[in-house]
Amino acid sequence: MRPSSRTASQIRPVTITRNFTIHAEGSVLIEFGDTKVLCNASVQEGVPRFMKGQGKGWITAEYSMLPRATHTRSDREASRGKQGGRTLEIQRLIARSLRAAVDLKLLGENTITVDCDVIQADGGTRTASITGACVAMVDALSWMRAKGILKTNPLKHMIAAVSVGIYKGNPIADLEYTEDSVAETDMNVVMTETGKLIEVQGTAEGEPFSFDEMQEMLDLAHAAIKELFELQRSALN
Amino acid sequence: MRPSSRTASQIRPVTITRNFTIHAEGSVLIEFGDTKVLCNASVQEGVPRFMKGQGKGWITAEYSMLPRATHTRSDREASRGKQGGRTLEIQRLIARSLRAAVDLKLLGENTITVDCDVIQADGGTRTASITGACVAMVDALSWMRAKGILKTNPLKHMIAAVSVGIYKGNPIADLEYTEDSVAETDMNVVMTETGKLIEVQGTAEGEPFSFDEMQEMLDLAHAAIKELFELQRSALN
Amino acid sequence: MRPSSRTASQIRPVTITRNFTIHAEGSVLIEFGDTKVLCNASVQEGVPRFMKGQGKGWITAEYSMLPRATHTRSDREASRGKQGGRTLEIQRLIARSLRAAVDLKLLGENTITVDCDVIQADGGTRTASITGACVAMVDALSWMRAKGILKTNPLKHMIAAVSVGIYKGNPIADLEYTEDSVAETDMNVVMTETGKLIEVQGTAEGEPFSFDEMQEMLDLAHAAIKELFELQRSALN
Amino acid sequence: MRPSSRTASQIRPVTITRNFTIHAEGSVLIEFGDTKVLCNASVQEGVPRFMKGQGKGWITAEYSMLPRATHTRSDREASRGKQGGRTLEIQRLIARSLRAAVDLKLLGENTITVDCDVIQADGGTRTASITGACVAMVDALSWMRAKGILKTNPLKHMIAAVSVGIYKGNPIADLEYTEDSVAETDMNVVMTETGKLIEVQGTAEGEPFSFDEMQEMLDLAHAAIKELFELQRSALN
Amino acid sequence: MRPSSRTASQIRPVTITRNFTIHAEGSVLIEFGDTKVLCNASVQEGVPRFMKGQGKGWITAEYSMLPRATHTRSDREASRGKQGGRTLEIQRLIARSLRAAVDLKLLGENTITVDCDVIQADGGTRTASITGACVAMVDALSWMRAKGILKTNPLKHMIAAVSVGIYKGNPIADLEYTEDSVAETDMNVVMTETGKLIEVQGTAEGEPFSFDEMQEMLDLAHAAIKELFELQRSALN
Amino acid sequence: MRPSSRTASQIRPVTITRNFTIHAEGSVLIEFGDTKVLCNASVQEGVPRFMKGQGKGWITAEYSMLPRATHTRSDREASRGKQGGRTLEIQRLIARSLRAAVDLKLLGENTITVDCDVIQADGGTRTASITGACVAMVDALSWMRAKGILKTNPLKHMIAAVSVGIYKGNPIADLEYTEDSVAETDMNVVMTETGKLIEVQGTAEGEPFSFDEMQEMLDLAHAAIKELFELQRSALN
Repeated sequence: MRPSSRTASQIRPVTITRNFTIHAEGSVLIEFGDTKVLCNASVQEGVPRFMKGQGKGWITAEYSMLPRATHTRSDREASRGKQGGRTLEIQRLIARSLRAAVDLKLLGENTITVDCDVIQADGGTRTASITGACVAMVDALSWMRAKGILKTNPLKHMIAAVSVGIYKGNPIADLEYTEDSVAETDMNVVMTETGKLIEVQGTAEGEPFSFDEMQEMLDLAHAAIKELFELQRSALN
Repeated sequence: MRPSSRTASQIRPVTITRNFTIHAEGSVLIEFGDTKVLCNASVQEGVPRFMKGQGKGWITAEYSMLPRATHTRSDREASRGKQGGRTLEIQRLIARSLRAAVDLKLLGENTITVDCDVIQADGGTRTASITGACVAMVDALSWMRAKGILKTNPLKHMIAAVSVGIYKGNPIADLEYTEDSVAETDMNVVMTETGKLIEVQGTAEGEPFSFDEMQEMLDLAHAAIKELFELQRSALN
Repeated sequence: MRPSSRTASQIRPVTITRNFTIHAEGSVLIEFGDTKVLCNASVQEGVPRFMKGQGKGWITAEYSMLPRATHTRSDREASRGKQGGRTLEIQRLIARSLRAAVDLKLLGENTITVDCDVIQADGGTRTASITGACVAMVDALSWMRAKGILKTNPLKHMIAAVSVGIYKGNPIADLEYTEDSVAETDMNVVMTETGKLIEVQGTAEGEPFSFDEMQEMLDLAHAAIKELFELQRSALN
Repeated sequence: MRPSSRTASQIRPVTITRNFTIHAEGSVLIEFGDTKVLCNASVQEGVPRFMKGQGKGWITAEYSMLPRATHTRSDREASRGKQGGRTLEIQRLIARSLRAAVDLKLLGENTITVDCDVIQADGGTRTASITGACVAMVDALSWMRAKGILKTNPLKHMIAAVSVGIYKGNPIADLEYTEDSVAETDMNVVMTETGKLIEVQGTAEGEPFSFDEMQEMLDLAHAAIKELFELQRSALN
Repeated sequence: MRPSSRTASQIRPVTITRNFTIHAEGSVLIEFGDTKVLCNASVQEGVPRFMKGQGKGWITAEYSMLPRATHTRSDREASRGKQGGRTLEIQRLIARSLRAAVDLKLLGENTITVDCDVIQADGGTRTASITGACVAMVDALSWMRAKGILKTNPLKHMIAAVSVGIYKGNPIADLEYTEDSVAETDMNVVMTETGKLIEVQGTAEGEPFSFDEMQEMLDLAHAAIKELFELQRSALN
Repeated sequence: MRPSSRTASQIRPVTITRNFTIHAEGSVLIEFGDTKVLCNASVQEGVPRFMKGQGKGWITAEYSMLPRATHTRSDREASRGKQGGRTLEIQRLIARSLRAAVDLKLLGENTITVDCDVIQADGGTRTASITGACVAMVDALSWMRAKGILKTNPLKHMIAAVSVGIYKGNPIADLEYTEDSVAETDMNVVMTETGKLIEVQGTAEGEPFSFDEMQEMLDLAHAAIKELFELQRSALN
């Protein structure tokens, strides 16, 4: 029995609010239950130095938790003077995932930066970030087309992500904090609309997991992410 | 004529939403028109090293703008590895102002940290932060009393703040970005409910200002802050 | 009664020594009683990146206290690896004040950096810095004219600064450390020779201050700064 | 056809040299073909602050590439002043994997730090690090038992790791640099001797991968890691 | 012929001004011609962590050049966020030299920090720093005895230092900047009053030097340092 | 009697292994007994900014100890976020020494960076680094000639280095750790094949040393370095 009485495969209520702030070219607030992440996509002309002269664009991401997004306050990274390993790991994951959704040649020498700032955390912030960031990026691409910066749509396919895990011996989908903090295994899965995998990151926090459990978690993720694609599509219409 | 058609003394619509997030002991979203700041007050046992053994509490603040709170994206301070001078200046101002509102002896050896994160900026973020942070701090103090951590209320008086300035030769209250960016003078005023001054910071960005203009700006601030105290009081009831 | 037996409006003996060091284009040691600040103005061709291509010059400042300028040794900022908030706040104030004294278009694409290093501190280091830095800057401008770098004098007017405050209930001018450390209110005022205000920064360290007290402090500052302009003028002749 | 003429499932020659340096409690040079990593395990009394008072030990890891371990020289992280995201991500992975191999309660309040320094890189440095670090850790545990610091062996099971991927459309094991740099998908798998999974990190660098490809890569990894356990065992006898 | 018309062995006029600032326990301005260094010695109770519990004291030093101590302005290290290699090298040299002059056991668990801040540079700043810092340290030791912190004098012997070098093929003493910047070899020598060597640091900047030249430079240094001990003694009487 | 039973002038067995790693243009493992340093020379087109446009090349060096090169683990500098003073001092020494061996004009606008990473430490790591780095640099220069980047050989002469010191009152050559840690004086000497001095750095760690002892140490160094040149020559043939 899950603390929230959800079934093993049941994800939390998800809401996707577009145009949440006014300045960004794409601005999405995504909520998975009590997890709330603001995803702002910014368009900038030009590309970072290491990409120059290749006729291709670049997509990057930054991730941060507000100090009091969690039960107890954590130090502000700007004040400590560096981003922690967890932050860097997550924003690299988000950026890689987003780049897998776009044809960088069609993007031209432009950069899209997606800032994922966690306003409130209750588990699954990185997968919520990816799912929301994709919508914000799509809005930024539309803005670029409306402005005439892009002639064609460089989006190859939508992407979405969910966390799955082994909780008290059972595979479950979309872990909230009370589940995540005691789960034996935690796995983040990023997929394309076309049913393929972009990233799979499974970690045995408590107990090693079997190949069968791995398969069950992947199946749960597959089903959950299908629902997320529906929700992204409704939000975009 | 102001871009927003407001009169010289007219402040923008202000809303104060308490309990905006679920984890912080005090959590307030304050909006001055399009300026939106999330103020989260966190209570921690103990005080910083330099305050130990004095039987007094401590109140501090941190301030940050989300990278895309503004028209163009600014670098994330955590990623650059340090907080800029403007950020440090503002969070020192917020913290000093909050400490002026509380009897630190009655607070006991406890620390309240108020995080002011600007979700969206349209001028006046530091004064909005102070006005919202005071409400969040009051909620944190109530939480401490409810938990039995405090026997009496250490609040001496509410504080609130507004920006005033000289815009095209005329003193006006509560500048929005389009006004602020071309104002000759910009002044931030922090006051107590009891009609006294906590901080006055006036800067001639373009043209030096006269003693008479200084007086007119102070009068505008005084009137505006009175309105803000009304709004704080309604929010707290 | 002030510890030094000065009257409320009486400033400390001020001396301004030009050409204190040999390398800088302008080099001034300014002393307000036991407060001693070395102000070195350096001229560099070109402007910082964010100013390029505007046909305008730039003036900036850096401030630092020698570790043992004070009663007890404070950590060296270079060794701690960053400048503190107080330092950044002060050097931003000095630089803004100096820029308000100069027509940046007439300066051409040149940069003047004024380093204010506090050799010995006894209160009022930031206002002494501004008053001395203005003289050093004037010497650097003369050097530029002598070298043929400037055709006309870009100086709009001299600036000078003083601290005022409320000490044991009474407004006083030019606080020394023993006064400053217990003052209820501390206010720094920067003015032009033409009798206008550049910066007013008043802070209630202990007790909030009234509008009347604010006025009295401004009057004291006005009178004191008039004396400082006299001293700057004698030094420059 | 692989550049090295290896079959899809064939791993490179692996050698494990114990006691490679003289000071560390466990010191292993592991080689996967041209990839060479020095894994030094250091035993320290006590645990980090966040672990104190729990009666448990701690295992951590640090990872670094010598600047010229690669084809072109990369900046030294100590000289740039911070560890990059890739480094932090890898050393977090190594440390998590090692902790999954040990009963931290039986370790007592002691810390083992395993430094993985890449002397020469040719793909698969993180999985080589894990496989070698486990042997170095086992030697450090033996040293602790010989010294009487431990009464029982806290090792739960050996761990080992390998990289697998999709290269020109085919799943292959143990990618070298020329394969890794153009692989469509790259996956790192960490397993226990008991046939369970500790970590699975799959990333579509070029093309998304199917669930079937995922399964094939896992099978290749499973077979390769079995060989690695044999090699660890021979090295330890 | 030297630019200053000095003979090969002739040092510049040296002045040692004690009590140059009012707060430090020892405060010396030392001048070697146009090189001016302020040496402030600060006494602090206790010792750094790595010295605790040994019943011994500690002596350390910090060195810095004011940004405009030199012909062209150099960046402020506090603002760049780290001390350069040259600075660290010099302050380690000063501190080692001072420690060689004192019996750390007789100092008790106290720390003396000597800050050497170069007000104006014209060559030989590190040797001037050592020579001045020794006098400032002696004053700090006297202060400690007067306060009753020390029962006996822990000074073993005075130390002093000078630079020597090969300039246009000839060995000379006490190089000024115009000599130093083109010298083939530069050597810094630190000695005790008792005629022994504490540090010898010779560097061939341009041309390698012979064993004979080494000997000639050492002889010049020996003679020059004897003069410096005379000057220290007069200053202290 | 030395712990190793060596005579006063006897150096440890030295081995020089070229082509130790495969990627660097010059790669040397040098061993002085149990001290082992990997010296990798990397060739890069172009020069640092401060050298641009002078038609000259640049040679620089970086030095690091692996955390467990020593008896107890030391913190990793990359993880602490900065290089320590000792590291900077040593790498500046190595780089200066190497530059003294090469005609930078003949090198053209190219940079050679030599990374000296200490795999295992037993005293004398900086002098071993210099001696090995020179061989690695020579290999890099040969690579440049083979590639046609250089027309002539810019090497002026080989350089080599050794440590000498006063141990229990007697001058000895090539100190190992057990000697170095208690030596009264420690001196590092860098020489050219042509019998001249590049660097002499002598430090009285315990007792000041006499001019006679200085001479004896220099003689020991001279003899030892002659042997090192023999070993470099054999290695290069």
